[in-house]
Amino acid sequence: MPKHYSSLKERVHDIIFEADTPAGKAFDVVLLVAISLSVFVVVLESIEGLHQQYGWAFTAAEWIFTVLFTIEYLLRIYSVARPIRYVTSFYGIIDLLATLPTYLSIFFPGSQYLLTIRVLRLLRIFRVFKITRYLQESNILVKALINSRIKISIFMFAVLMIVLIAGSAMYFIEGGANSGFSNIPQGMYWAIVTVTTVGYGDIAPATVVGRMFAAVLMILGYAIIAVPTGIVSAEMAKADITPENVTTQHCPNCLREGHDRDASHCKFCGHHL
Amino acid sequence: MPKHYSSLKERVHDIIFEADTPAGKAFDVVLLVAISLSVFVVVLESIEGLHQQYGWAFTAAEWIFTVLFTIEYLLRIYSVARPIRYVTSFYGIIDLLATLPTYLSIFFPGSQYLLTIRVLRLLRIFRVFKITRYLQESNILVKALINSRIKISIFMFAVLMIVLIAGSAMYFIEGGANSGFSNIPQGMYWAIVTVTTVGYGDIAPATVVGRMFAAVLMILGYAIIAVPTGIVSAEMAKADITPENVTTQHCPNCLREGHDRDASHCKFCGHHL
Amino acid sequence: MPKHYSSLKERVHDIIFEADTPAGKAFDVVLLVAISLSVFVVVLESIEGLHQQYGWAFTAAEWIFTVLFTIEYLLRIYSVARPIRYVTSFYGIIDLLATLPTYLSIFFPGSQYLLTIRVLRLLRIFRVFKITRYLQESNILVKALINSRIKISIFMFAVLMIVLIAGSAMYFIEGGANSGFSNIPQGMYWAIVTVTTVGYGDIAPATVVGRMFAAVLMILGYAIIAVPTGIVSAEMAKADITPENVTTQHCPNCLREGHDRDASHCKFCGHHL
Amino acid sequence: MPKHYSSLKERVHDIIFEADTPAGKAFDVVLLVAISLSVFVVVLESIEGLHQQYGWAFTAAEWIFTVLFTIEYLLRIYSVARPIRYVTSFYGIIDLLATLPTYLSIFFPGSQYLLTIRVLRLLRIFRVFKITRYLQESNILVKALINSRIKISIFMFAVLMIVLIAGSAMYFIEGGANSGFSNIPQGMYWAIVTVTTVGYGDIAPATVVGRMFAAVLMILGYAIIAVPTGIVSAEMAKADITPENVTTQHCPNCLREGHDRDASHCKFCGHHL
Repeated sequence: MPKHYSSLKERVHDIIFEADTPAGKAFDVVLLVAISLSVFVVVLESIEGLHQQYGWAFTAAEWIFTVLFTIEYLLRIYSVARPIRYVTSFYGIIDLLATLPTYLSIFFPGSQYLLTIRVLRLLRIFRVFKITRYLQESNILVKALINSRIKISIFMFAVLMIVLIAGSAMYFIEGGANSGFSNIPQGMYWAIVTVTTVGYGDIAPATVVGRMFAAVLMILGYAIIAVPTGIVSAEMAKADITPENVTTQHCPNCLREGHDRDASHCKFCGHHL
Repeated sequence: MPKHYSSLKERVHDIIFEADTPAGKAFDVVLLVAISLSVFVVVLESIEGLHQQYGWAFTAAEWIFTVLFTIEYLLRIYSVARPIRYVTSFYGIIDLLATLPTYLSIFFPGSQYLLTIRVLRLLRIFRVFKITRYLQESNILVKALINSRIKISIFMFAVLMIVLIAGSAMYFIEGGANSGFSNIPQGMYWAIVTVTTVGYGDIAPATVVGRMFAAVLMILGYAIIAVPTGIVSAEMAKADITPENVTTQHCPNCLREGHDRDASHCKFCGHHL
Repeated sequence: MPKHYSSLKERVHDIIFEADTPAGKAFDVVLLVAISLSVFVVVLESIEGLHQQYGWAFTAAEWIFTVLFTIEYLLRIYSVARPIRYVTSFYGIIDLLATLPTYLSIFFPGSQYLLTIRVLRLLRIFRVFKITRYLQESNILVKALINSRIKISIFMFAVLMIVLIAGSAMYFIEGGANSGFSNIPQGMYWAIVTVTTVGYGDIAPATVVGRMFAAVLMILGYAIIAVPTGIVSAEMAKADITPENVTTQHCPNCLREGHDRDASHCKFCGHHL
Repeated sequence: MPKHYSSLKERVHDIIFEADTPAGKAFDVVLLVAISLSVFVVVLESIEGLHQQYGWAFTAAEWIFTVLFTIEYLLRIYSVARPIRYVTSFYGIIDLLATLPTYLSIFFPGSQYLLTIRVLRLLRIFRVFKITRYLQESNILVKALINSRIKISIFMFAVLMIVLIAGSAMYFIEGGANSGFSNIPQGMYWAIVTVTTVGYGDIAPATVVGRMFAAVLMILGYAIIAVPTGIVSAEMAKADITPENVTTQHCPNCLREGHDRDASHCKFCGHHL
């Protein structure tokens, strides 16, 4: 029995926002394909040879996709109950940013390359295919990251201090005419390249003192790379372990969950389990 | 008492596929040596000096090994009960790929260097020497990787999104005549080199904005390198703890579980297990 | 009711050292802003273009900040009960080092760039905003690092031995006229760059033997990078699990421990905790 | 009361091998200082400027140290109960290798730089200062590494296969006149540099296909860097946890140890604990 729609608005809402109805699911699949294609067009357009030969086709495709996404964006605002909430939500902002660069490219040629931000719209993929297992696993990932956000921000604060001090010390040691350490921000860039073990080598110390200092910084970086890994590992182990050590049993008296496997009484009300 | 073979087919099967009988074991050891030698020949052939001096010998050795491996492959198909199943199995595909490049080198000179894929045939080494301890440990490794495959694919999906956005942003920022960021795929290559902390330095940002952006990407890469490590660590800890230390044996008296492998009495009631 | 101050000294102490009183908090906030500004000025001054245009303004700002911090430093010594203890404390040394470079720059131009060490004074930020959660989390981090300090120093000792031996072996192998391995300290610098996976590429092996040796060192470095991470992960997991989830509370009835923080009844006998 | 020595041999043994007696401890401290000095001399000698000026002094010091260490080595062989066992032990081999390079330098100038292997003799430092806490911690480290040796060798076997295949594929793709991929061993060197995230950049792909392949290898390397870390983390956590979960209580009946904290009966004989 088809659902009765009280209004066009509700019908649009069901197609665009829901993924349960056939029409909604079809819409979402078409959307995902369109997003992927539009990103692919942007990537291809950036290649010199292809740009010269098919530039007009790429530009046309970009405008078509952008107009479609703009209509979709406006329909979303129209059909949703609280437009402000949608517009200021994560997906609302992404949906807007996914159309703007094409319009900007009229005034600032080249800004259409920022259209690849559209790829973030693909995050909807998890919702569309409702792979609950995926959702659950990605929740564990996100939860572990959220739980360790304070430890990681403290760690980042410490790293930035080290980078600032190391960068200016290196500017003091190596700074000069022909070196890459021409000012403190350059020194900080080098310190970040070094401490993260990326090591491009575009800026590298040349003096003996500079190399000794760099060696100390590398050893330090080597030691502290362990810290974020340790943080996330511990969180992941905790997030992972929880469902095992804790039963899903309800207390028959107070109905609360979260009892340990070896518990014989409810830890909240004392009732026998 | 020698086993009675009902047919030649069964006899061939026992020699080629089994590693328990003396003939089967001898065959497998000879095979492993032949594979190692043939890979070694391919590696040596690629060295310019040796190639010019012993080129004919290498080519001869390659053809001899390839013919032998082809015969072996055909014998495997002949002797196995369900040929289709073998041909489409992991080892069946490897066994085929291990012979093809020599034949292809008639038409496409140079493709014989792909023969090093033969090295994958060495994975049989675990089966031949039946080192159960090794098998068990490698199972723990493989199991930990399989258990974390969903988390790792979500993570990879996130990394690829970051790489796409970072690559095109960098093309937007740095892209120009003399920079290495000549199109978005190049930018993505740079982003992968950076986020994985490989950092060749063949493409590196030169502008101030580009370096700031690169620094942010490095710090981000530094933080997210912790994620796969955390995932695998947690899985490894779980895989390691579960099967080894605790049996699933019940106490016949108090019916409680969780006894250590080396326990001969129940640790809760003292009853003999 | 305003607190009665027995002396000016006590009053100064309250403003400078305490963060609970309005005056003390205001002072700390002003201090944090001043530190950030003064570091920012030092960073800007190092940029050639800005230096030439606003050099006099930066120098003036530096002197003003330095004089203010010197007065603050002297007031801290004056108002604290045991001046020696403050002067030799971590913050005391930082506070002194944060003023010295400006005075040194009279004799050694350029040393004012070391003023960025002032950024360490920002560590007071945790005390000022009394974000206990942050403090607790950073304590876990610091505790995990302190607990693993012996393991990490043994590890560092082992790494330095490897670096020394690898560096001199590489000098023996590659050392010569045009290579970067001109002496053992250079070889050690290369070994540190390699083992920490930074890999600038400013010094890289060119001979076949040298590259084989480097490959072994890289594989080794790849294997041992796991060690500090393992150390910190294990400590972090321990530090994380112990204090947060389980109380040290005894059940008044059965005297058993190991109750969760949120438990109101003993999970073994059901008695109220 | 001084210990009575039945022979000179015993007395020499006590001084050289023991670290408990005052004479033995003094000998060990002198030895550690001599080793450090001799390594320092070798490092200094390699620096061109110092070598030209003080070459004769370095050579003299090297010979004095070498003669002393040779005498010590011979005394160790003389005084120990089973000389063969000492000579073939880890320290016996190191002690021999620590003297040979000087003698070799008569025939092969330059080999004295290998003397830095002497630094391994410093490992005795742990024995001399008997810092049991250090010993215990380093045992945990070594134990964790030994426990994970099978997993790590399987992992290394897998990495070497990947490196061989990737190296020859890259030689197939990029190999040519002006590229760095001049043969398969070079390709393997590049693959190791890439997979370990060292990334010198001395050899880097230049073609589009080569860069795509390299990107895949980097992502792979990024994923598998997690494996050894996971292995060691898990072992470390286990090694660390063991002493906590298991009591040091003896069973009063069968005297065996290793009972879990929550055990009320011996798990070996069933006796009440």
